[in-house]
Amino acid sequence: MADETWKTAITDIGPGKIRIKGYHITDIMEKLSYAEAVYLILKGEVPSKAEAELMNAILVSSLDHGASPPSVLGTRTVVSGGNSLNAAIAGGVLVIGDTHGGAIEQSAKIMQEWANKGDNMTAVAADLVDWLKESKKRMPGFGHRLHNIDPRTGKLFEIAERHGYKGKHIDLCKAVEKALEDKLGKKLPINVDGAIAAVISDMGFDWRLGKGFFIISRTPGLLAHAYEEMTRERPMRKLGPMPFEYDGPGEREI
Amino acid sequence: MADETWKTAITDIGPGKIRIKGYHITDIMEKLSYAEAVYLILKGEVPSKAEAELMNAILVSSLDHGASPPSVLGTRTVVSGGNSLNAAIAGGVLVIGDTHGGAIEQSAKIMQEWANKGDNMTAVAADLVDWLKESKKRMPGFGHRLHNIDPRTGKLFEIAERHGYKGKHIDLCKAVEKALEDKLGKKLPINVDGAIAAVISDMGFDWRLGKGFFIISRTPGLLAHAYEEMTRERPMRKLGPMPFEYDGPGEREI
Amino acid sequence: MADETWKTAITDIGPGKIRIKGYHITDIMEKLSYAEAVYLILKGEVPSKAEAELMNAILVSSLDHGASPPSVLGTRTVVSGGNSLNAAIAGGVLVIGDTHGGAIEQSAKIMQEWANKGDNMTAVAADLVDWLKESKKRMPGFGHRLHNIDPRTGKLFEIAERHGYKGKHIDLCKAVEKALEDKLGKKLPINVDGAIAAVISDMGFDWRLGKGFFIISRTPGLLAHAYEEMTRERPMRKLGPMPFEYDGPGEREI
Amino acid sequence: MADETWKTAITDIGPGKIRIKGYHITDIMEKLSYAEAVYLILKGEVPSKAEAELMNAILVSSLDHGASPPSVLGTRTVVSGGNSLNAAIAGGVLVIGDTHGGAIEQSAKIMQEWANKGDNMTAVAADLVDWLKESKKRMPGFGHRLHNIDPRTGKLFEIAERHGYKGKHIDLCKAVEKALEDKLGKKLPINVDGAIAAVISDMGFDWRLGKGFFIISRTPGLLAHAYEEMTRERPMRKLGPMPFEYDGPGEREI
Repeated sequence: MADETWKTAITDIGPGKIRIKGYHITDIMEKLSYAEAVYLILKGEVPSKAEAELMNAILVSSLDHGASPPSVLGTRTVVSGGNSLNAAIAGGVLVIGDTHGGAIEQSAKIMQEWANKGDNMTAVAADLVDWLKESKKRMPGFGHRLHNIDPRTGKLFEIAERHGYKGKHIDLCKAVEKALEDKLGKKLPINVDGAIAAVISDMGFDWRLGKGFFIISRTPGLLAHAYEEMTRERPMRKLGPMPFEYDGPGEREI
Repeated sequence: MADETWKTAITDIGPGKIRIKGYHITDIMEKLSYAEAVYLILKGEVPSKAEAELMNAILVSSLDHGASPPSVLGTRTVVSGGNSLNAAIAGGVLVIGDTHGGAIEQSAKIMQEWANKGDNMTAVAADLVDWLKESKKRMPGFGHRLHNIDPRTGKLFEIAERHGYKGKHIDLCKAVEKALEDKLGKKLPINVDGAIAAVISDMGFDWRLGKGFFIISRTPGLLAHAYEEMTRERPMRKLGPMPFEYDGPGEREI
Repeated sequence: MADETWKTAITDIGPGKIRIKGYHITDIMEKLSYAEAVYLILKGEVPSKAEAELMNAILVSSLDHGASPPSVLGTRTVVSGGNSLNAAIAGGVLVIGDTHGGAIEQSAKIMQEWANKGDNMTAVAADLVDWLKESKKRMPGFGHRLHNIDPRTGKLFEIAERHGYKGKHIDLCKAVEKALEDKLGKKLPINVDGAIAAVISDMGFDWRLGKGFFIISRTPGLLAHAYEEMTRERPMRKLGPMPFEYDGPGEREI
Repeated sequence: MADETWKTAITDIGPGKIRIKGYHITDIMEKLSYAEAVYLILKGEVPSKAEAELMNAILVSSLDHGASPPSVLGTRTVVSGGNSLNAAIAGGVLVIGDTHGGAIEQSAKIMQEWANKGDNMTAVAADLVDWLKESKKRMPGFGHRLHNIDPRTGKLFEIAERHGYKGKHIDLCKAVEKALEDKLGKKLPINVDGAIAAVISDMGFDWRLGKGFFIISRTPGLLAHAYEEMTRERPMRKLGPMPFEYDGPGEREI
């Protein structure tokens, strides 16, 4: 038999009633942005103005990264085999694993474990980099196969600074970047995953949710690729990530 | 061999460059809400103020519907079997098919086909309901197994009206509600899927994207359920949607 | 609440008891081949000797088709993203849709609909090809992008003939091949999907199960590719179906 | 660009040519059982008679376990949401994780690590159980939530003995069962997962393939449940694993 009873603390449902974390869905539709609503359903409370802007920037930051990521290949391949939109998105989400999109979780885990080891984040970062060196690990969330400087990192930290939003995980993250250069002699700039990991850690999110933010963020990108594959390509084409060319709108400003 | 070359018009990528539909990702992070960014990546252009608020309300509206929808059961079952977060979300998205979450697509398809059959939507709606009657079909997006009046429908149309946002699909949708009552003698109020279908149709989205809006909207809900299952329940419990009890925060206001 | 009660006619379970369609699992393990057990669980009865050999040949026939099919790309991409074996196989199975692996279902559907339209399969085939021509459809299960003559087709029909196993769907299938050449002037030889469709139709299987036989057959192939990707390739490589080279054992005989 | 070239050692494909591990597909269709073919594609060689019968019994043993396993709930839920057969099977396979179907892999990993620690498996088993005790782990593949004695275990070992098929992993497995009783005072009989783990380890399969055998074996069961849900139940029913009743054929003999 199904377990006698079990509890859920997410949404309360009844005839004419949909209340997420206590708030009526119509109030949320009226008063909160989607990013705020995401924060609410995962954290249980409405975010501050700074947290709202940061969560928005986080969700926007990983919206899409062109046609080459393996999750896009997963989604397009499912479409190409002749399947439905939801199967295509599921196929892309399935690909988001430890080596693709896993850096937020891995980086947040390390930062959350180390940030409590002291008050001086410069010293903690030095110890952390020594530990990485000894255990021959690389620090997830630093360095990028394509971008020397990840433009999204600077923007995220800029928004945090503008609002005076700071915490020890952001401090640790920046200190680790310096320590990696000092101790290993390698320039491994914080990438968007490392920056997101630091910010969500300061917001108090469990690192176990790390992949979740990436998945939410990337879902519209996967949808856009699924739709483009469905409407622009023939079924069962020989699909590989390359070579492809971008032929959309040129550079412009909002 | 992979096809000689293929084109994509979504995102242009290069070292230090991520431009979605021509806009720099950092500009989008700074200036657009997530809902606006979703509109942009799917439509190719930045939405108007009215469209931005409507898109936000659409994405918020289906964020979660408690523990009983089959997609939640799918997600929780994958967690319960001992799997990763991305597999759990993929498992939930897989369930979102023609009978669960498919009404937006189906309703938008019918509205987009019929809205061009005349200028007077009352007359078109009458013909549409006659056709439904003859072909013994029911109109997707109308009526709800739980809610007599879906609170989200009213809120969505209220936001549209406040901005003077109107189009023939919203008109047709409302006319169909009346015609169903007049001709079939049944009160089948527009549900949230029908309302979303009308609004995205007026925005010019292809009905084929219908399930996509629901999937984007529901992904954070699936994540919240995956995380709750992971942290609150034991593995391999006997999972059924019921009976469960809500034990989260009580009613409150934003 | 979960539905008061529901029925299943597949397997009866209790402490120390596992009976599939009435037979003890230990008896099936002892006395039936896997192919016979698959027939049993799907059809409800133990197959005849001829049916057992045909089912075995069907399940073997689509075991693998090298590295280029999109389902293999799906499976390998999920592995490459850093995911588990079951997610990788699920990712490959997800790709098996209407345009990849869907021909058995589509071909069986048409044959099952037409085989009842007359006693003379030559005449029925002529009508069927006229209908295809008029409705501008192609016949699924005929022709192959790679093989002029699909070696598996001949082998399957040879096994059927050896056992004197024949039925109207096999007759219709062969008659359609001739009619396509006579009426359209095109040589479109029966491929393995068409041959399987004919045989399972004569066995009395519902065409809705068509993709299922392909999925069962191909699962070990997907597993072999998942394992090879996991043990032989680095994560996040740029994956495309081509160019690759076969470097396994050379031609040999059993 | 896609990697310049990559290698695969599974199947060699060309016009009219499908050779798995060097053997023509038509030869395999004619001369090998499906279980032998599965062994071949995963191991690279045709199995001996004993190995062939054991592999057949392994693949049959986990064919189905009634309506209650979570993977069945996963498959049926995907069907219930209005999706295709392949999505339904993928949804079930997704559920097969560390806590459902993971015991073969976990048990084989431990046995493969420990079997090399000595020649006397009784002594190795004693050390292994001490280690389990100290590290407060339980031994995967032993004990069963439903079956006191798993009928499949005895049958598998009986087939091995009949053929004089023995190796140190089977020995270790049996010695562990005794040591668990002697040292912990608990009767934890070897279940089917533990027995399969021992047999495939003696066959020389990498423990990383463990879940794969379960997935191959269970796929036809998932297909049978998908088809039953599709043809016997209404969409979007409230699905839970229980309560259900078996109403198929009664006990009978092959």
